[in-house]
Amino acid sequence: MGDPASIGPEIAVKALSQKMIYERCKPLIVGNASVIEKALAMLNFKSRINCIQVMSQARFEYGVLDVFDLQGGDLSSLEYGKVSAIAGDAAFEAIRKVIDLAVNNHIDATVTGPINKESINIAGHHFAGHTEIYAHYTNTEKYAMLLVDDDLRVIHVSTHVSLRQACDLVKKERIIDVILLLNAACQRFGIKNPVIGVAGLNPHAGDGGLFGDEEELEIIPAIKEAKSLGFNIEGPVPPDTLFSKAKGGMYDGCVAMYHDQGHIPFKLQGFDWDAKNNQMKNVRGVNITLGLPIIRCSVDHGTAFEIAGKGLASPDAMLQAIKYAIQLSTNNVQSS
Amino acid sequence: MGDPASIGPEIAVKALSQKMIYERCKPLIVGNASVIEKALAMLNFKSRINCIQVMSQARFEYGVLDVFDLQGGDLSSLEYGKVSAIAGDAAFEAIRKVIDLAVNNHIDATVTGPINKESINIAGHHFAGHTEIYAHYTNTEKYAMLLVDDDLRVIHVSTHVSLRQACDLVKKERIIDVILLLNAACQRFGIKNPVIGVAGLNPHAGDGGLFGDEEELEIIPAIKEAKSLGFNIEGPVPPDTLFSKAKGGMYDGCVAMYHDQGHIPFKLQGFDWDAKNNQMKNVRGVNITLGLPIIRCSVDHGTAFEIAGKGLASPDAMLQAIKYAIQLSTNNVQSS
Repeated sequence: MGDPASIGPEIAVKALSQKMIYERCKPLIVGNASVIEKALAMLNFKSRINCIQVMSQARFEYGVLDVFDLQGGDLSSLEYGKVSAIAGDAAFEAIRKVIDLAVNNHIDATVTGPINKESINIAGHHFAGHTEIYAHYTNTEKYAMLLVDDDLRVIHVSTHVSLRQACDLVKKERIIDVILLLNAACQRFGIKNPVIGVAGLNPHAGDGGLFGDEEELEIIPAIKEAKSLGFNIEGPVPPDTLFSKAKGGMYDGCVAMYHDQGHIPFKLQGFDWDAKNNQMKNVRGVNITLGLPIIRCSVDHGTAFEIAGKGLASPDAMLQAIKYAIQLSTNNVQSS
Repeated sequence: MGDPASIGPEIAVKALSQKMIYERCKPLIVGNASVIEKALAMLNFKSRINCIQVMSQARFEYGVLDVFDLQGGDLSSLEYGKVSAIAGDAAFEAIRKVIDLAVNNHIDATVTGPINKESINIAGHHFAGHTEIYAHYTNTEKYAMLLVDDDLRVIHVSTHVSLRQACDLVKKERIIDVILLLNAACQRFGIKNPVIGVAGLNPHAGDGGLFGDEEELEIIPAIKEAKSLGFNIEGPVPPDTLFSKAKGGMYDGCVAMYHDQGHIPFKLQGFDWDAKNNQMKNVRGVNITLGLPIIRCSVDHGTAFEIAGKGLASPDAMLQAIKYAIQLSTNNVQSS
């Protein structure tokens, strides 16, 4: 469902209005039935809702939305586009439940919509985001954020920390961990021997030690070790050409040393700004948490409060996230 | 000329083989006539060379290449694609001369090709690159690197330093300086009231102080002061959406806090990797040094030693650089 005051319910409902989804998987929404009903009414969609409390009640029929109803607090006062503890709590409980369903093997994969960090926090749930909630409730220590959009796959050594702290987190062991996670993910996407490009941290990848020593001390040793383990790794590649080359087909996956090193090229490729209407018109891109015992794919855009409740939101990223969840869970089953 | 062992002479000659250039400006090449002759022979071009020693000897006729001949050391042993002191010294002397011609008002603008830092340095000229050579020989203290490709204009608070040092260089005064340089440059490109987007340093522009404090301490105060001076400034913008928005027309110019923050989106947009031939097929993008008393535009790609001497290099970036040099010098004259 995502944040009920955001575009989350709208993009979930729009995505599940596509028949193709029901041909490829058995989808259900986890959240509050009243919120989904409101989204359907706002969009003037004719689907019916099938409220369920246990998985056996789900019908998985196109035209009937199965909603695992959380029956939380009173959401009647909820306003689109507003930060509130009510919205934060509802979003949080939906995440808790979907993790619970996955951990107990009632579902094969989870897909998340956007949440508002402030709403989550004023509701008393102190997490930086989905990734941290998932890691906490699945007791996962080694995980990483992968962004995927068509042939661009970027994993991150660190994410939501300051740039200075990100420099401190460029460590050989961590780099090897994310290379292993990325390699395994590429294989689950059907790439047998993925070629992985590893970025440097500094301009020109340090230019032989002229600008910073993290390449010599941490990144090159990590690449050497990964190569000795048989992985197909190149780098450190100057950060400003790595992503052009990946876009052109040179690398199946990229390792970014910090949040923006990966997010800037990813969003430049996947997001299109509509200057006339002052909003993003395309927001392609899926965020996948690797290293969890369960599958989690997510849209990579935010809550878009400014257009929530207006019917303007694009479900493209949600459809992409569902597609990747299907792909990962299918290959998961095959390989296990 | 650029590095004589690189694609520099080739792209200069190819650019000046376009008649349109002679219709818009009076071009000449500064370098070694023997190097230019070799490039013409390699390309099987029929242009003649007019060796000059003083500007009055230049003819500026299409089909005749005016070469301000430096008559340096013996370049007959020069091999394409090789680092050497001979090549470094020739490249360096060409830069010295072109700066000298501009400072003395013999020419209106300078355009540079790629050089090899190692060659320059083993020739005994200890500079990190063109920018530093220009700053040194024009006694310039406040300068900045602007990258331009169509409507994407990105200025950098710092460039060739480690990422850790780049964090230290995010200072209010410097940010205001680069805003002023960018604003003036946009005006010289014909944009009357440029809208400038200033990036944050940290992910999500610090997310209200959660990830780093440079936004609160340096960037926001700089933006406030620039606004109070009447400039049209927005920010700090989360670094991972600034460039999508700029590409979509929201900003006329962008302020990047460090080298790769600006270079990654710029090269993702302007460079196209040719996976089949394992080389960049397009390398659009012009690098302009702002703050100098003279005009300097440059290609933003490297020496491409791997294809030097083969006739494969694209002159697109060189043509773009010449175009911007014309535009800046025309508006320079108009405003002075």
